[in-house]
Amino acid sequence: MNSHPPNYEHLDDQMIKMEVNLDNIPGEWLGYVMDLLFEAGANDVFYTPIYMKKNRPGILLQLLCSVDSLNKMKEILFKETTTLGVRYYPLTVHRLERVFKKAETEWGTVTVKEGILNGQVVQHAPEYEECKSLARLHDIPLKKVYEQVWKAIDNKA
Amino acid sequence: MNSHPPNYEHLDDQMIKMEVNLDNIPGEWLGYVMDLLFEAGANDVFYTPIYMKKNRPGILLQLLCSVDSLNKMKEILFKETTTLGVRYYPLTVHRLERVFKKAETEWGTVTVKEGILNGQVVQHAPEYEECKSLARLHDIPLKKVYEQVWKAIDNKA
Amino acid sequence: MNSHPPNYEHLDDQMIKMEVNLDNIPGEWLGYVMDLLFEAGANDVFYTPIYMKKNRPGILLQLLCSVDSLNKMKEILFKETTTLGVRYYPLTVHRLERVFKKAETEWGTVTVKEGILNGQVVQHAPEYEECKSLARLHDIPLKKVYEQVWKAIDNKA
Amino acid sequence: MNSHPPNYEHLDDQMIKMEVNLDNIPGEWLGYVMDLLFEAGANDVFYTPIYMKKNRPGILLQLLCSVDSLNKMKEILFKETTTLGVRYYPLTVHRLERVFKKAETEWGTVTVKEGILNGQVVQHAPEYEECKSLARLHDIPLKKVYEQVWKAIDNKA
Amino acid sequence: MNSHPPNYEHLDDQMIKMEVNLDNIPGEWLGYVMDLLFEAGANDVFYTPIYMKKNRPGILLQLLCSVDSLNKMKEILFKETTTLGVRYYPLTVHRLERVFKKAETEWGTVTVKEGILNGQVVQHAPEYEECKSLARLHDIPLKKVYEQVWKAIDNKA
Amino acid sequence: MNSHPPNYEHLDDQMIKMEVNLDNIPGEWLGYVMDLLFEAGANDVFYTPIYMKKNRPGILLQLLCSVDSLNKMKEILFKETTTLGVRYYPLTVHRLERVFKKAETEWGTVTVKEGILNGQVVQHAPEYEECKSLARLHDIPLKKVYEQVWKAIDNKA
Repeated sequence: MNSHPPNYEHLDDQMIKMEVNLDNIPGEWLGYVMDLLFEAGANDVFYTPIYMKKNRPGILLQLLCSVDSLNKMKEILFKETTTLGVRYYPLTVHRLERVFKKAETEWGTVTVKEGILNGQVVQHAPEYEECKSLARLHDIPLKKVYEQVWKAIDNKA
Repeated sequence: MNSHPPNYEHLDDQMIKMEVNLDNIPGEWLGYVMDLLFEAGANDVFYTPIYMKKNRPGILLQLLCSVDSLNKMKEILFKETTTLGVRYYPLTVHRLERVFKKAETEWGTVTVKEGILNGQVVQHAPEYEECKSLARLHDIPLKKVYEQVWKAIDNKA
Repeated sequence: MNSHPPNYEHLDDQMIKMEVNLDNIPGEWLGYVMDLLFEAGANDVFYTPIYMKKNRPGILLQLLCSVDSLNKMKEILFKETTTLGVRYYPLTVHRLERVFKKAETEWGTVTVKEGILNGQVVQHAPEYEECKSLARLHDIPLKKVYEQVWKAIDNKA
Repeated sequence: MNSHPPNYEHLDDQMIKMEVNLDNIPGEWLGYVMDLLFEAGANDVFYTPIYMKKNRPGILLQLLCSVDSLNKMKEILFKETTTLGVRYYPLTVHRLERVFKKAETEWGTVTVKEGILNGQVVQHAPEYEECKSLARLHDIPLKKVYEQVWKAIDNKA
Repeated sequence: MNSHPPNYEHLDDQMIKMEVNLDNIPGEWLGYVMDLLFEAGANDVFYTPIYMKKNRPGILLQLLCSVDSLNKMKEILFKETTTLGVRYYPLTVHRLERVFKKAETEWGTVTVKEGILNGQVVQHAPEYEECKSLARLHDIPLKKVYEQVWKAIDNKA
Repeated sequence: MNSHPPNYEHLDDQMIKMEVNLDNIPGEWLGYVMDLLFEAGANDVFYTPIYMKKNRPGILLQLLCSVDSLNKMKEILFKETTTLGVRYYPLTVHRLERVFKKAETEWGTVTVKEGILNGQVVQHAPEYEECKSLARLHDIPLKKVYEQVWKAIDNKA
């Protein structure tokens, strides 16, 4: 069985958004919590600054996960943060078809994730980690790597 | 058929909230995307700063639209932003009855939108664009125009 | 009948999230609105900065309340803010069992709220107001009070 | 000797901005720290959400104080927060002349602070605490009190 | 005499940063104030959400201007916002040399601003308004215009 | 010669704050830029969400560095971001004396950085990376490691 979402365009109505308000946890811990949630299979995790009662700057933690992962996410949130409650609601996700292509730069090859809507390519997303590795290895600005990737993408269009 | 919401007080349960997380798009493009979404009929569009993985400052785009506009909004989001997925869920909107009145200032007339809850006027919203035009035309501070409008509103109460 | 949530671990599916976008209200009033909503029984109220049309910095007011409080919350929002519409959707809250313990410091006793997941204590939250009172009374840093409370908690583990 | 700034229009070049980055302190404590800094004479204290290393949501505490208060502010910051360093730099403040007037509403009198630039009244700021007290006492929306104050101000113009 | 900064690389030590904290102004007005400040010659104007006393969500207005514009900026701030004081301090700006080139796309020509550091081109900034006009005119996604501009830039390198 | 700041309490008046406004760079790149700036010796780097002209959500990059590092920082900012100008101003930093202690937990030893003001210990900061390693290695919540460290610190007081 494959826990990854399929690569063709589809509507996924088995997704959950979870939310937690946090006003008594150091920011230091939250970087770590984000890593744990991703490792446990969250589709996305992100923080928003919020204004809470008694002049407290707080953090709204939001995460997206499949219904199957709900309990695993709850357990991490309760054990690793300071919250006494988590809230959640279902939502629908429309995902584009994804195809992986290769683009050549003078420093090496980079994977480009294409997003396809009704059979038309609408997105080209160069893989960040690969671009970063080339920038590090050849000691060049990251943006130069992206510029060459974008040029290579266009040449194939 | 009229696609605008009615002006009497009502509950609208045909509304959708859409959300997209963006970490690979320049801020410059997002000002333009907001305009396009409003022109295509979004009821509201707004951005929130979010903290995403790998130390990336990102943007959460949120929009409100009717169920009828769902596909049009999706198409703009996929074509104009860099996202590979959009998420959404239904919600209910309670809207006040709206009545349009006129208020006189020494520089001209301004429309005031009244909001009515159970027959009682609870809001007075001067039309921003009209106030701005008067301020521009007469080279006076915008707040002076609002002050006169508020005074005129009170006189009618 | 008890309007407070029970202290044992449970899922509550009678909760509502309400949201209002605000771009024509002074920040000054919003501190007051938060107080009124809490007094009227909101479970939580918080603000997020948002970017709205026409370069307006706005505020997203969010609140959590039970289905029973829905109308009371709406009335406050319509009367005290400048909005012409409020939106809302149902959600589920998973709440930990809560047990109240006492911790001794050299300046006095502090209540600690324990959060219990499947019978295991996963949270220890010292009561902020009590810690603050001790800090004020004895003219010591608030963090020193918390440090002693944490030490006392550990001793009981 | 009077530690308050004078009420006539002036430039004050004895002001300091202090800044502290915080990523290991609970938001709960920060509401308290703000109170202490104001009580000790800070002219203003405010928080900004910041993105720090290792995916940490942090807080930038900023405060304005006179050169005379520098050491008192430092001591509070070091004792009540978790920082190991504070930074600061001088700045100049241009303050308007301030005159206090009275405005009558049907629920009572409210003080209005006028701001005067080169002899011309450019600001009218009703005293928030007085408006709030009237709203509480008479159980009316805060915005209604402000509306009547604004009307009274206009009548005197 | 030319009030614009020169186009060659230089250090400018005649710049001022001004700051105003705002908690009693509607967001609606702030979009207008930004326009006025730019029109009056501000080099940049931007807003940051801040947490102010008494649970008020506020806005920190920051602007950059030359020493020569200081009084004009102050006057706008005092007349158009609700502040009773503005603060400022000097700073130094290191500006790159700027050269304007042309890039061809299938929909027309776009100006590209190059930034030059010690004689080396380090930035290529396509003019947003021109890209937007082409996108509007030809009813194509804005990002497609940028993609073609980037490709054209690379071809010249 | 040692480029690190000394460990005793001191005022450092050779520090610089640099600032860059960014509205045409993807958030993805900014995580990488932060790493590069820290590696090149920045004392701190952090991002703030800002509202820029034309409805653009932007980022304010701020960094602290010594006067000696000024040119190195500029070069990274110009090569890796999309800015055409950087601004900066001097500031003073008051740093506490720093002493490194050891704290024992049941899973191993953790370094604790003490901050000392006028000879008095006012801060105890457990080293995050060490706590995280123990949490990872023993598969326990990070907060449990901190709780044991705090207890050990108290025992030495």
